[in-house]
Amino acid sequence: MACLLWAFRGLSAAVFLSALWGAVAGDKLLVVPQDGSHWLSMKDIIERLSEKGHEIVVLVPEINLLLTESRHYTRKIYPVPYDQAELENRYRSFGKNHFSQRWLLNAAQTEYRNNMIVVGMYYLTCQSLLRDADTLSFLRAGKFDALFTDPALPCGVILAEYLGLPSVYLFRGFPCALEHTFTRTPSPSSYVPRYYTRFSDHMTFPQRVANFLARILENIVLDLLYSKYEDLARDLLGTQVDLPALYRKADIWLMRYDFVFEFPRPVMPNMVFIGGTSCKKASVLSQEFEAYVNASGEHGIVVFSLGSMVSEIPEHKAMEIADALGKIPQTVLWRYTGTVPPNLAKNTKLVKWLPQNDLLGHPKARAFITHSGSHGIYEGICNGVPLVMLPLFGDQMDNAKRMETRGAGVTLNVLEMTSKDLENALKTVINDKSYKENIMRLSSLHKDRPIEPLDLAVFWVEFVMRHKGAPHLRPAAHDLTWYQYHSLDVIGFLLAVILAVIFIALKCCVFAYRKCFGKKGRVKKSHKSKAH
Amino acid sequence: MACLLWAFRGLSAAVFLSALWGAVAGDKLLVVPQDGSHWLSMKDIIERLSEKGHEIVVLVPEINLLLTESRHYTRKIYPVPYDQAELENRYRSFGKNHFSQRWLLNAAQTEYRNNMIVVGMYYLTCQSLLRDADTLSFLRAGKFDALFTDPALPCGVILAEYLGLPSVYLFRGFPCALEHTFTRTPSPSSYVPRYYTRFSDHMTFPQRVANFLARILENIVLDLLYSKYEDLARDLLGTQVDLPALYRKADIWLMRYDFVFEFPRPVMPNMVFIGGTSCKKASVLSQEFEAYVNASGEHGIVVFSLGSMVSEIPEHKAMEIADALGKIPQTVLWRYTGTVPPNLAKNTKLVKWLPQNDLLGHPKARAFITHSGSHGIYEGICNGVPLVMLPLFGDQMDNAKRMETRGAGVTLNVLEMTSKDLENALKTVINDKSYKENIMRLSSLHKDRPIEPLDLAVFWVEFVMRHKGAPHLRPAAHDLTWYQYHSLDVIGFLLAVILAVIFIALKCCVFAYRKCFGKKGRVKKSHKSKAH
Repeated sequence: MACLLWAFRGLSAAVFLSALWGAVAGDKLLVVPQDGSHWLSMKDIIERLSEKGHEIVVLVPEINLLLTESRHYTRKIYPVPYDQAELENRYRSFGKNHFSQRWLLNAAQTEYRNNMIVVGMYYLTCQSLLRDADTLSFLRAGKFDALFTDPALPCGVILAEYLGLPSVYLFRGFPCALEHTFTRTPSPSSYVPRYYTRFSDHMTFPQRVANFLARILENIVLDLLYSKYEDLARDLLGTQVDLPALYRKADIWLMRYDFVFEFPRPVMPNMVFIGGTSCKKASVLSQEFEAYVNASGEHGIVVFSLGSMVSEIPEHKAMEIADALGKIPQTVLWRYTGTVPPNLAKNTKLVKWLPQNDLLGHPKARAFITHSGSHGIYEGICNGVPLVMLPLFGDQMDNAKRMETRGAGVTLNVLEMTSKDLENALKTVINDKSYKENIMRLSSLHKDRPIEPLDLAVFWVEFVMRHKGAPHLRPAAHDLTWYQYHSLDVIGFLLAVILAVIFIALKCCVFAYRKCFGKKGRVKKSHKSKAH
Repeated sequence: MACLLWAFRGLSAAVFLSALWGAVAGDKLLVVPQDGSHWLSMKDIIERLSEKGHEIVVLVPEINLLLTESRHYTRKIYPVPYDQAELENRYRSFGKNHFSQRWLLNAAQTEYRNNMIVVGMYYLTCQSLLRDADTLSFLRAGKFDALFTDPALPCGVILAEYLGLPSVYLFRGFPCALEHTFTRTPSPSSYVPRYYTRFSDHMTFPQRVANFLARILENIVLDLLYSKYEDLARDLLGTQVDLPALYRKADIWLMRYDFVFEFPRPVMPNMVFIGGTSCKKASVLSQEFEAYVNASGEHGIVVFSLGSMVSEIPEHKAMEIADALGKIPQTVLWRYTGTVPPNLAKNTKLVKWLPQNDLLGHPKARAFITHSGSHGIYEGICNGVPLVMLPLFGDQMDNAKRMETRGAGVTLNVLEMTSKDLENALKTVINDKSYKENIMRLSSLHKDRPIEPLDLAVFWVEFVMRHKGAPHLRPAAHDLTWYQYHSLDVIGFLLAVILAVIFIALKCCVFAYRKCFGKKGRVKKSHKSKAH
């Protein structure tokens, strides 16, 4: 009944919108999203698709963070084995743990364990979805034209195979740049830095050694993350499943970056670069924020947010930060819901939420203190505001490295930094003009494009729905075994031929030598013996 | 004086056009073109750039084939050491030789020698340009914003370095896919077929062996073609020059293909795929051709052209072809300037020129007999007309293979085919509906794009002029030596470490063994000797 109601809602929204836009596209898209910040980019694309008259069904776990109702899509809700309190508790622990001290030897293990607090929950979500007979039967009957998913975790990837649907992936590249790793896009370790290494594309020899080894370690991480999903897929599909082979079936990869941000590297024809979809034209500020900005005077403002995943900072760290913020002449707008640090200076305004893009787009924005998630980085780029980066987890350390390499910001280790470090970093990016110039250069390069990234994303989702896939973009590499792909059988064969030729040539030489000189030798010998 | 006149002409055209379009872009582009069919795509882009208000100077040898005057650009003419008769004679020989019989063992040599008839002349053209003090001084004083060239031969590439200009290349990929070979774009020989092999992207084991070897041979061909230019570049630049290093400085590669035509493979972020710029909406036919088409009745027409480079066909071959054409019910419009074959049937109309795209765009077009140059192929794709392909030289054999693999046409060996072969091929592509369906599918995929390829090409030339290059798209691979790029130093180092660890571990074991058992052994021995 609930399904019917949702379907009806979706239908009525589609009819309303198509009447509004004068065109019934009539395509039906199934969306398997990733909750959390990943959803934000996907939502923008879905809303635009809905406005173009497509019918959209989003698969939503009954307990979730951001997957709210919308007039743009119908939600198909499925049960999960945890409650709202557990979800919030896990996210809180996840956020909090980024501030716990870690040591060189256990850093990787700590990071992995912390990620698993949330990732483990997502596994339960996926397991619940793929075993929910009601949802599966709804999906089988759904007659969708394509599936749109975030492939950071493979639930949507498996469902596309189950439903036999062409698919479009929306992805930042984390974890493990699996858009390249799983799809055989060449990634020479000599200049393509691996995640977590924090290297740039110009590496020293020891860095290249580490990067080479990191490439091998990636396989272990991928196995740890995904092997369990292979079991889920096997149960659902009734056959042994190789997860990379499923990922290779993606028709289009919409990559949430471009090469103003990411280092240039080999890519494949079915990858479309749509970095910056989240950048919007800055709107007029509300009275509250307009008042803050106006009061900031000639010094302007600094915007400070560590994103939606981090609500609390340990008190001693918050005090260190507050101390640093109090030492710059700018007004700081700090999005923070934790306990107010007792040493908070007058120039620092704590807010529960802030219109980040609109503030960054204001001419008085002087710097942006960010955790360097890809959305924040792009808002910094779009609005040309120099960055002070306090990366916390995931791709954030590597994102920060990319912007630092381009001279558009300064990175600090949030665990190790002192109050003075933050103060200096802020003063540097504000007063050293090169930072502003560099981020303005990136901004102008990023904005100078033949088509808006959001339009490009929408185009390719529609393309896949129209043509039932994009098999003409599928490289033949996907039909080769690993040793064929690397031509190892060819090299082996050629080596065998060369060795055979050398062997035969040697044999011939020996034979010829014996023919020519063997008898003479013997003759000579016999002469000699006669002489004796 | 002549230069001034040209400059003035260019200026007045630019002012006129900018007034017409209401925007003075004010950028100045230097064009170093390649004469012959390559020029056709470049001309389209230049005309659009001129219409957008840019000032364009095209470097033109005083003796040329297609580089005619135009209101869209100023020509800067430089002297060459040959006359019109020699030029035409070389092209005639080049065209004619494609019909001379060749044998397996000397095929490559014959093809190379034949190409050198024209390529050798282009070398003289380039030599003359790079040694012409007047032209060089004109260029140095020109204050250009960028250089636009066809890099099939490296004259423009060298000039970009000499003038210190950012550059945009327009290229089909022939010879030797140098957009990948020279720029370190990974091209696994297991599924990326080499030119001249006529392989598809799905190769058998023997084909993969041949393709692997062809990759090695490519280097020899490149050396044969380009080493002489390194001397020219050294003389001009006053320093030893590595030609691939110059090619790597290209800011943008505009590739005259897309992946409806080409096999999907790794590419680089500074490559833009603009296949199909030459396709235009079919115009209304002239009275002469309209009459032919109308008279063709329900059977429709077949369009036949071997391109602008081939004017004559040996008589016996022309008769074979005429014989086959007479055996199909369609009216054949054959662009042919040679002697009329005596057996020409009534359904075959010989014309000196034909509006190829407009005829292919007519609903009565049933098939297109083409030499499968990339322009013709794209006109076939755009208009959805099945192909009978008679490839003659260069990339044409490989182009034909691409279309044949997609079931959109049939390839014949023009030297070996009989009249019956051609007749059968025509009947097949016309009567077997799969050919029409396949090329219509390619057509719909090719035409379904977010932006027109010509607009995309113009955008990127303007981008490079606006930003004085596109260094943000330059991969760090270009700063590595060959052994660093392939991580050979890293692998060597790690192997050394592994060997050292094994060696030390073994030594330790031996030492420990001796410590533990050595004495006992000796003790036992001494016991034994005592016992004795």
